[in-house]
Amino acid sequence: MAVQSPAPGTTDPGPAPANPDAPSAFGPAVALSCRECGARVPLGPVFACEECFGPLEVAYDFGDEGPEALRARIEAGPQNIWRYAPLLPVPADVTDKPNLNPGFTKLVKADRLAAELGVTGGLYVKDDSGNPTHSFKDRVVAIAVEAARTFGLTTLSCSSTGNLAGAVGAAAVRAGFRSCVFIPADLEAGKVVMAAVYGGELVGIEGTYDDVNRFCSELIGDPIGENWGFTNVNLRPYYGEGSKTLAFEICEQLGWRLPDNIVIPIASGSQLTKIDKGLQELIRLGLVADKPYRIYGAQAEGCSPVSAAFKAGHDVVRPVRPDTIAKSLAIGNPADGPYVLDIARRTGGAVEDVDDEQIVAAIKQLARTEGIFTETAGGVTIGVLRKLIESGQLDPAAETVAINTGDGLKTLDAVAPSTGMTAVIRPTLDSFREAGLA
Amino acid sequence: MAVQSPAPGTTDPGPAPANPDAPSAFGPAVALSCRECGARVPLGPVFACEECFGPLEVAYDFGDEGPEALRARIEAGPQNIWRYAPLLPVPADVTDKPNLNPGFTKLVKADRLAAELGVTGGLYVKDDSGNPTHSFKDRVVAIAVEAARTFGLTTLSCSSTGNLAGAVGAAAVRAGFRSCVFIPADLEAGKVVMAAVYGGELVGIEGTYDDVNRFCSELIGDPIGENWGFTNVNLRPYYGEGSKTLAFEICEQLGWRLPDNIVIPIASGSQLTKIDKGLQELIRLGLVADKPYRIYGAQAEGCSPVSAAFKAGHDVVRPVRPDTIAKSLAIGNPADGPYVLDIARRTGGAVEDVDDEQIVAAIKQLARTEGIFTETAGGVTIGVLRKLIESGQLDPAAETVAINTGDGLKTLDAVAPSTGMTAVIRPTLDSFREAGLA
Repeated sequence: MAVQSPAPGTTDPGPAPANPDAPSAFGPAVALSCRECGARVPLGPVFACEECFGPLEVAYDFGDEGPEALRARIEAGPQNIWRYAPLLPVPADVTDKPNLNPGFTKLVKADRLAAELGVTGGLYVKDDSGNPTHSFKDRVVAIAVEAARTFGLTTLSCSSTGNLAGAVGAAAVRAGFRSCVFIPADLEAGKVVMAAVYGGELVGIEGTYDDVNRFCSELIGDPIGENWGFTNVNLRPYYGEGSKTLAFEICEQLGWRLPDNIVIPIASGSQLTKIDKGLQELIRLGLVADKPYRIYGAQAEGCSPVSAAFKAGHDVVRPVRPDTIAKSLAIGNPADGPYVLDIARRTGGAVEDVDDEQIVAAIKQLARTEGIFTETAGGVTIGVLRKLIESGQLDPAAETVAINTGDGLKTLDAVAPSTGMTAVIRPTLDSFREAGLA
Repeated sequence: MAVQSPAPGTTDPGPAPANPDAPSAFGPAVALSCRECGARVPLGPVFACEECFGPLEVAYDFGDEGPEALRARIEAGPQNIWRYAPLLPVPADVTDKPNLNPGFTKLVKADRLAAELGVTGGLYVKDDSGNPTHSFKDRVVAIAVEAARTFGLTTLSCSSTGNLAGAVGAAAVRAGFRSCVFIPADLEAGKVVMAAVYGGELVGIEGTYDDVNRFCSELIGDPIGENWGFTNVNLRPYYGEGSKTLAFEICEQLGWRLPDNIVIPIASGSQLTKIDKGLQELIRLGLVADKPYRIYGAQAEGCSPVSAAFKAGHDVVRPVRPDTIAKSLAIGNPADGPYVLDIARRTGGAVEDVDDEQIVAAIKQLARTEGIFTETAGGVTIGVLRKLIESGQLDPAAETVAINTGDGLKTLDAVAPSTGMTAVIRPTLDSFREAGLA
């Protein structure tokens, strides 16, 4: 897991570290690179390009190990995201340090759902509700925590409306950080409990989620925030890399090959873009055979700026004011929206949206066909999958993977009004028969 | 995974099957055996001895494979309970059939909790909240489902107050069974949703949990219930074996060795007795070196009939009327109570209880030290662990494993009154400073 020596023809060689033989605190990562202008800066707790304000992302030198040796090294690794440490910005001794060890969640063959949807080419659900705090956020936070450790930061923070707050709170505890998380003060009581139970500071902000975000940006520029790591702000380049592990796991669990289609929910759009980045890395490293694949994005109709831009043929994503039950996807101005459009168009995929009623129906369809209880975001993904098939945008004869990013226990309110007992009876056989259940 | 030929000196050889070379639908299981009188009956959907009404349990012929070969076979198996198929009453092709594939959950080294409790010999939390429906019930139900399949039963059922209803509902969906689950009609709305979302029949019974149980017994004796498999009634001998996998996983994850102490919550007491059975099997098969271990049982003070009997030195467990926030442990007349007493006394362990306040404190202690959010049953286990250490009943210099059987998202109400935001502020740095957070 030490940095590989640069070699001609490797992926994104970049500048060699000062001492190429010394193990790096960031493993194969060698720099941050601007997604817009390509400018490079050293690895640090920064997230925006000084030249053009574009987003910074991690650049690697993966060396010249060769796919067979690399694949063997991965397969011999632990049953969590750290098996992919050779492809992540983490130190060689990452597995020795305490963290929640998320990942390597189940890839469920969804034959009953496939039958209902008419998918004949094979349908899988990548079920990230199996992560430690039951959402994919554990993956991204785990990478951010390692970066925070390396940078000597002492407080972990984020702005959140739910899943991320819990993931940061739990990860901070295990890794030995102070945490201070910011949420809108009017967040539902259940979500407050899920975030507060880990004992870190949980601060309610009087205002909207946008107000919370603006406050965090202010805090990070103030001396107060000097040793703070905001997972989704100054640690964002590292944080984002965690989503690549979804791509890695899907391909490894399929037997080291690409699926035909992947359907991914869109909040900021980061997960979708990083899954594409992960697939591209697997291809370039020879870990999977190159072949066409299509990336599909899923939004809720009540917060569908990327879907709207896709359908209108626009390159620009026009911000909206969210109004949907899929709160964890309710980002009206998604930072990675334009990149999502690029990827959907480049791969021949699409971006689609479903309304609240379709979201609830999809949650229940996944539960009653596969025994997987997903949160509203997963309802968006399954609902969009259905709509893509019905509208002819997704080929049902192709092999498709849909990503379940979270757990239904976190959004019980979405299905509660339409989910209840079949019957209430007295404890007698006669009463059972009268209810028509025998 | 075929039945091994009987050989002298093997564990519990029992009668040879009709054709010892034919693969059995129950793998190494050869009969049901009465725990009280030792009478044997063929494997079937029965649970009580016809001779003495004692509970029936599965008897095996594990053959003479030898520990090295068996260990290698297990380690080459899937990352779920089916890796232990050679030690379970399941057919050789169990992995080819659709089910939720629970198990192989994390064994978390709990160093921060150990430091707070003064444990110096090593402390682990076996975290079964990572199962598909986030409780250990997925293990036991998975084995019951395989038995139901073999017996040609068509409806899966149970009486439940929560975790089991969801586990049966989800497992039935994946395995292709009809399900019809019975709950008290006044169950909390959230738990009803968790059980109902899988789309099976969910029938509320007007009455107490005991009334629900009595009704199920009546139903099973009626022609209506002819093709029904009640996981915790007529499939109970198979169902119970699922808990052995907790013992198998703990020992394998420790590097194929026994811990010194295991702390286990008690509802019916079945989990505790089957974990002991699993440990005994590992020892007899040579998969772990024999050494003393101590089994500790944990109850809520508001439902502590086994703890009361243990403390009083009685062999008989006197039923109580439960009154505790730990609803999933609230069985006032635990079927396996006397066996729990035997095991605690035989191994030099103990049975202890904690009150509701201690349960809540323990849930929060585990969350803020290890980032694991457990349900009330886990609060009972961790609270009892603390009490056992403080009272000198458990040696803090010994290596201890505590079992977390479920997920905090299912019992949010227990911690909600005492878990909330640190502060509410305006979105300004001044407001942040005024709140004393800087």
